[in-house]
Amino acid sequence: MDNIISYLRGHREEYLNKVKDIVAIPSVSSDPERKDEIIRCAKHLKNDMADAGLENLELKETPGNPIVYGDWLHADGAPTILIYGHYDVQPEDPVDLWNTPPFEATKVDDRLYGRGVIDDKGQLYIHLAALKAWFESEGELPLNVKVIFEGEEEIGSKHLDDFLKENKDMLAADCVVVSDTGMFAKGVPSITYGLRGLAYFQLDVEGPDGDLHSGSFGGPVDNPANVLVRMLAKLKDENGRIAIPGFYEDVEELTEEERENFAQLPFDEEEFRKESVGAPGLAKDDEFTVLEQLWCRPTLDINGLYSGFTGEGAKTVIPAKAMAKVSMRLVPYQDPEKIGDLFEEYIREITPDTVNVKITRMHGGYYFLSDVNEPMFEAARESVQRAFNKETALIREGGSIPFVHSITNILNSPAILLGFGLPDENAHAPNEWMDLDNFYLGMESIAYLYDEIAKRT
Amino acid sequence: MDNIISYLRGHREEYLNKVKDIVAIPSVSSDPERKDEIIRCAKHLKNDMADAGLENLELKETPGNPIVYGDWLHADGAPTILIYGHYDVQPEDPVDLWNTPPFEATKVDDRLYGRGVIDDKGQLYIHLAALKAWFESEGELPLNVKVIFEGEEEIGSKHLDDFLKENKDMLAADCVVVSDTGMFAKGVPSITYGLRGLAYFQLDVEGPDGDLHSGSFGGPVDNPANVLVRMLAKLKDENGRIAIPGFYEDVEELTEEERENFAQLPFDEEEFRKESVGAPGLAKDDEFTVLEQLWCRPTLDINGLYSGFTGEGAKTVIPAKAMAKVSMRLVPYQDPEKIGDLFEEYIREITPDTVNVKITRMHGGYYFLSDVNEPMFEAARESVQRAFNKETALIREGGSIPFVHSITNILNSPAILLGFGLPDENAHAPNEWMDLDNFYLGMESIAYLYDEIAKRT
Repeated sequence: MDNIISYLRGHREEYLNKVKDIVAIPSVSSDPERKDEIIRCAKHLKNDMADAGLENLELKETPGNPIVYGDWLHADGAPTILIYGHYDVQPEDPVDLWNTPPFEATKVDDRLYGRGVIDDKGQLYIHLAALKAWFESEGELPLNVKVIFEGEEEIGSKHLDDFLKENKDMLAADCVVVSDTGMFAKGVPSITYGLRGLAYFQLDVEGPDGDLHSGSFGGPVDNPANVLVRMLAKLKDENGRIAIPGFYEDVEELTEEERENFAQLPFDEEEFRKESVGAPGLAKDDEFTVLEQLWCRPTLDINGLYSGFTGEGAKTVIPAKAMAKVSMRLVPYQDPEKIGDLFEEYIREITPDTVNVKITRMHGGYYFLSDVNEPMFEAARESVQRAFNKETALIREGGSIPFVHSITNILNSPAILLGFGLPDENAHAPNEWMDLDNFYLGMESIAYLYDEIAKRT
Repeated sequence: MDNIISYLRGHREEYLNKVKDIVAIPSVSSDPERKDEIIRCAKHLKNDMADAGLENLELKETPGNPIVYGDWLHADGAPTILIYGHYDVQPEDPVDLWNTPPFEATKVDDRLYGRGVIDDKGQLYIHLAALKAWFESEGELPLNVKVIFEGEEEIGSKHLDDFLKENKDMLAADCVVVSDTGMFAKGVPSITYGLRGLAYFQLDVEGPDGDLHSGSFGGPVDNPANVLVRMLAKLKDENGRIAIPGFYEDVEELTEEERENFAQLPFDEEEFRKESVGAPGLAKDDEFTVLEQLWCRPTLDINGLYSGFTGEGAKTVIPAKAMAKVSMRLVPYQDPEKIGDLFEEYIREITPDTVNVKITRMHGGYYFLSDVNEPMFEAARESVQRAFNKETALIREGGSIPFVHSITNILNSPAILLGFGLPDENAHAPNEWMDLDNFYLGMESIAYLYDEIAKRT
């Protein structure tokens, strides 16, 4: 490994420049007028993948943006990994808030600023650098590699599922390495082994035919806004627990080991309240710490409320309708479909006969949970440890990444979320940046990963 | 009285034409571009008041639209009544929905259509006709009369209070007759002896500094929309009773007599649900009928709700803020100020320490309740009975008329709400109409009123 690591350390500048080059292509997938840039970016990436030593390069067509494919499959008998990343980026708006031009990656001290530097272009080049270093130093890889870099992650990976289904055999792998997540904090190399799922609903409560005057009608009319509020309040009990019968049935118990791991992370609840949330207080839980609440406990949040008169001043109206958007973050092993059924059943049960309630299932997403004792996972953990020279923290995330479930489920492979972003790198905001230490140590981590996986088989 | 009644019956056409003439002046007080029409209307009215026999006619200036004053004060030793009405009207929008031109009063069978025919121009001419009939038939009135017709009722009577305060002595009267209300139904001559009051609030719940991602933050953050819903749900108990401590303390008990009176009115709860409300069901109350709920029981209605994402689709946001507009209809003898204090106190008590809550008192209004055993009230009841040849129903209204409290309170006189509108005459909507039977019998009622009041003193 020494040669490989030396190679990487000697070529840092080169890969930094490669990131700058690709950041200069504004591959904003949400902007239809930049379709040409998307294609230009995919082709540019394909060339750099070839340069890194990958073969069979192709822009795989989809009904949307192409997926760039490449592989190297000459390690007979060795395992195969599939690397996932994306080359499309978020829009640069609001562009006025950028301190450097968004599509002109700019190094300031140990940071590189620019749209897409960390999400996800920089992370793609971590992989390309590791591949190149192996080929240049060893002439080959100790395992087989397949790569897919998609162009629609920022707009919901809408054609990824079909692509995976149609190319199941081509993409078959022992493990999928997803490089689109982050570390817990600077100096805390980490692997994300759990994500929460999601079940999102809209409730529309309809009472009277039209808005009514609260003087002439107030009393015998069951105001839909009052009804909605009454129903929403019944979704949680007095202790803040979700009151939908059966909701907690499949919720995984936290292990003592996990709780100890979390407790050792550099996390201050009061600082979180003050700096990250900015609220007068947190919703304390007698049984769970804040990190446990964020990562391992399901939630029920009202995401939107609308009814009646919301302008300045007073209008004495009984609204004909009231609307709420309600979503639940789910944890292993909650099934969003089952939760949807339980939710609907409970809503029907608590709907009074004074109104009609329409329930719309907006979308759902599965939780994700790695088996941390699985050899591939251990390999990943060990490789990060070797690169950063620090124990790898096992962390989870409160959010959902829908495509992770697609990948693992459709391809029937375990996934490892091995990313090198930091939580404050403004992934979807102005002044997105990438920490260069993590960029360089990330390359070394991936280089070690091949070694560690090969060693274990 | 026979001559007077004969006179009125012989001059119906004339007064119908007078209403048509004044409806032709578009005195829309909410439209600043029609200020000239307001003045033209006030002058036109002043001339018709002079023609009816009133004296000391004057357009009393206010910072807004003038109040037209007139009197006749030659019945030494007899009581004095003050007649209140308004000559301004609602806008004609949406004008496309009118079947006849809004400012060209049009007789169709026994109805007169046009903007302001019933609210309130037709009712003004009921009084002028009665006055004229007395003067033409008897040469004098049996009591003293003062008249104020204001020009800002449809925009909240904003300068009325000051005018009343500044002219307290000039306006002193034994009783105020307000002609701006209605009857229970066609064929049910009625006097409104009670109105509900109002206390209106806005609640703003503020939690995090800004909107947060429900994945990254859901759980330990007490979502302001969830908090708002929780708090609003606590404003009523499981039986639909308002849960603010002390709220019912001053609520008047209904008398058996009132309940019997209401029960005799032609009112069908199922028809009300279906035709007037159009909801699947009503908020039934074990103790009170629908009419009792509408007229004599306080309410708590959410008039507006707003938080987070309310557009199409799903956004996984924890909103930084949530807003509700909440109002209570109050009944005798609830004081809106006291209710405001109780509400604020309770809100403070149920506010968790995870958010800040701002309470804004929007506006309040006092209930109104006539003493139905008072001689003036009995006189009014008897006069309507004589004209319509049917027992006068004693009814109440669920709404509030803020100026009624101003008049009775500032002038320290009882008020009688003696109006001849019907609930379905589209007072604030296109195709406003006036029932001509009620117009003609209204004139006779007012003519009898003078006689009945004079008799009792």
